[in-house]
Amino acid sequence: MTESANRALLPAGLRDMLPPDAEFEASVVHSLMSMFARHGYDRVKPPLIEFEESLLDGAGGGTSSQTFRVMDPMSQKMMGLRADMTPQVARIAATRLGTQPRPLRLSYAGQVLRVKGTQLRPERQFGQAGIELIGSDEARADAEVLVMTAEALAEMGVPGVSADLALPTLVPAVFAAYGISGETAERLRAALDHKDSATVAALGGQAAPLLQALIAAAGPAARALSELAALDLPPAAARERDRLAQVVGLVAADLPSLTLTVDPVENRGFEYHTGLSFTLFARNMGAELGRGGRYQGGGGEPATGATLFMDSVLAALPGPKPARRLFVPAGTPRAWAQAFRVQGWVTVSGLVPAADSKIEAKRQGCGHCLGPDGIVEVE
Amino acid sequence: MTESANRALLPAGLRDMLPPDAEFEASVVHSLMSMFARHGYDRVKPPLIEFEESLLDGAGGGTSSQTFRVMDPMSQKMMGLRADMTPQVARIAATRLGTQPRPLRLSYAGQVLRVKGTQLRPERQFGQAGIELIGSDEARADAEVLVMTAEALAEMGVPGVSADLALPTLVPAVFAAYGISGETAERLRAALDHKDSATVAALGGQAAPLLQALIAAAGPAARALSELAALDLPPAAARERDRLAQVVGLVAADLPSLTLTVDPVENRGFEYHTGLSFTLFARNMGAELGRGGRYQGGGGEPATGATLFMDSVLAALPGPKPARRLFVPAGTPRAWAQAFRVQGWVTVSGLVPAADSKIEAKRQGCGHCLGPDGIVEVE
Repeated sequence: MTESANRALLPAGLRDMLPPDAEFEASVVHSLMSMFARHGYDRVKPPLIEFEESLLDGAGGGTSSQTFRVMDPMSQKMMGLRADMTPQVARIAATRLGTQPRPLRLSYAGQVLRVKGTQLRPERQFGQAGIELIGSDEARADAEVLVMTAEALAEMGVPGVSADLALPTLVPAVFAAYGISGETAERLRAALDHKDSATVAALGGQAAPLLQALIAAAGPAARALSELAALDLPPAAARERDRLAQVVGLVAADLPSLTLTVDPVENRGFEYHTGLSFTLFARNMGAELGRGGRYQGGGGEPATGATLFMDSVLAALPGPKPARRLFVPAGTPRAWAQAFRVQGWVTVSGLVPAADSKIEAKRQGCGHCLGPDGIVEVE
Repeated sequence: MTESANRALLPAGLRDMLPPDAEFEASVVHSLMSMFARHGYDRVKPPLIEFEESLLDGAGGGTSSQTFRVMDPMSQKMMGLRADMTPQVARIAATRLGTQPRPLRLSYAGQVLRVKGTQLRPERQFGQAGIELIGSDEARADAEVLVMTAEALAEMGVPGVSADLALPTLVPAVFAAYGISGETAERLRAALDHKDSATVAALGGQAAPLLQALIAAAGPAARALSELAALDLPPAAARERDRLAQVVGLVAADLPSLTLTVDPVENRGFEYHTGLSFTLFARNMGAELGRGGRYQGGGGEPATGATLFMDSVLAALPGPKPARRLFVPAGTPRAWAQAFRVQGWVTVSGLVPAADSKIEAKRQGCGHCLGPDGIVEVE
């Protein structure tokens, strides 16, 4: 069967992961989760499917159009297949773990499904692995989440990790201070999204110079912070800027190797974020590896978190090292193979006596074969 | 919120796994899969959802009534949420990996969803982890799969692992040889399922003594084999018996600690199996930990495999060891915490200065606290 015929077996955007990719993904998730665990993030595992009303509550509402629904024959209520794990973890934090001491550090990893892929991410199923830090409004909490996810990626081997910082509540604070609302606000928002300074000048009224300065400030964090510091921002916006400066300082101290950029007018994809947010990238890769930021947990509790997208993370990593496969002819004492497995070999047992063990080893994809005098290389 | 209110948040049979259970499950799956990998089983990862027609093809047909369906808006075709991963792995072996050399050893782990729970397994979502050995009809292949899964369970710490062996094609071979079919066959099958020797005597005709002897032979493998050896079985059934004896011999040699029982008339749950099959149990636990056996792969290829059910496996294991949590007060140099993590500590960072670090450590569930003079215990 040809590869195109094979692909046709599955719906668009869904795929079989084959060796060695499936094992590689699992090992990367395992390493990430172990790293999170060592920093006190305790793993939770929500179900793949739950009632629509709880799944799409609050922050989950953003994924409504991306969520597959099925009827629950037991309750006759609609259920949704999760398109994002973050709202589920927020639900757990607010309910089952509502009485646990704060700050609450949680981690999670699992698969999500989406009704349609996007141009940037055509996959309809992919793995998420992430953390949530719930119950703290401290800048140190924002910094911890960013540093940990960026460091985890770097330790995995992702080259040139960078974070693009955004303040999705900054522009709304400026709009509010200048009385910009309704259609004007919408058109300005669109112009800002496209960094369209001319339209901002035409529509921005008294706020135009400030908004143009915000567009122009985008860039490396040090320069962006100094340009932002020079601006006369309304109080709510100024607080956002000061928090940004504080977090950048903490992150730079903890992880000086991390490239930080700031885009003060960025908003897309952060519709449910309530403060400092970020997107993680790797050098020479367009797709984002993860994103995170501050949001409002259950009962208005302050929270921040980050999610890594495993498909992008895997694409950014050098591939797995090939396993050392040792062919063990039929009849070899069991303890011998065991001894070699302990040494790190993958052993492949012959099920029938082979006329030539080396030929059989090669046929079964083994670089080495166990002979009467020990391991021999199969060229 | 009370635990019952919390439970009401989720549909029946679905649940949130909390700390430390979620981490424990993931670590057990990781260990199992690593063990399978060291024996040359390469991991594959099929999607959670695929076209109904491929998901429910062949051996997958048995899960049709247990499968949630959704419409694919892109192809307008029906898709199913997998209720079992085995048919997916068989599909991959027959298509994408159809040209790989045989025997093909594959492993998999993932979540499955079922429309309704059963009395024995009320969960509607649970994890599977398993192996498939495809392209060999050897008794050694049957033995390898059974030994590996049983040994993996024992190495994880499951107490008293036992395997109940079945030959789902034995009774059909007897029926065929004695010309038993139609309603008589169905009624006899039901009587055999309930070990109802009296009904078997009444309905079995000339085959009755043999069928009664098969019922009576159930028990420890050594005794069952000797009773079966004394029976005058029709040729096809005799071949099954001889294969059973061969596999029991291989398994007993490789894993003498494994308790083996045989039930020659057992059939339930093995409707799609074509030869030696087995169910794995732990001492003092009713629920099965896994099951496996011989089946027909794509294109009639001989295959055998086994699946472990993670919910039962976890229930059979002693719980996880609690982590050593070390509270690291705010302002502690980052390298210190890192040094302790390398030593195996879980570090929990303070986000704000604490008046009394030991009190704060205790509040955050840490048994130890990092002070100016090193680690102090928090009682």
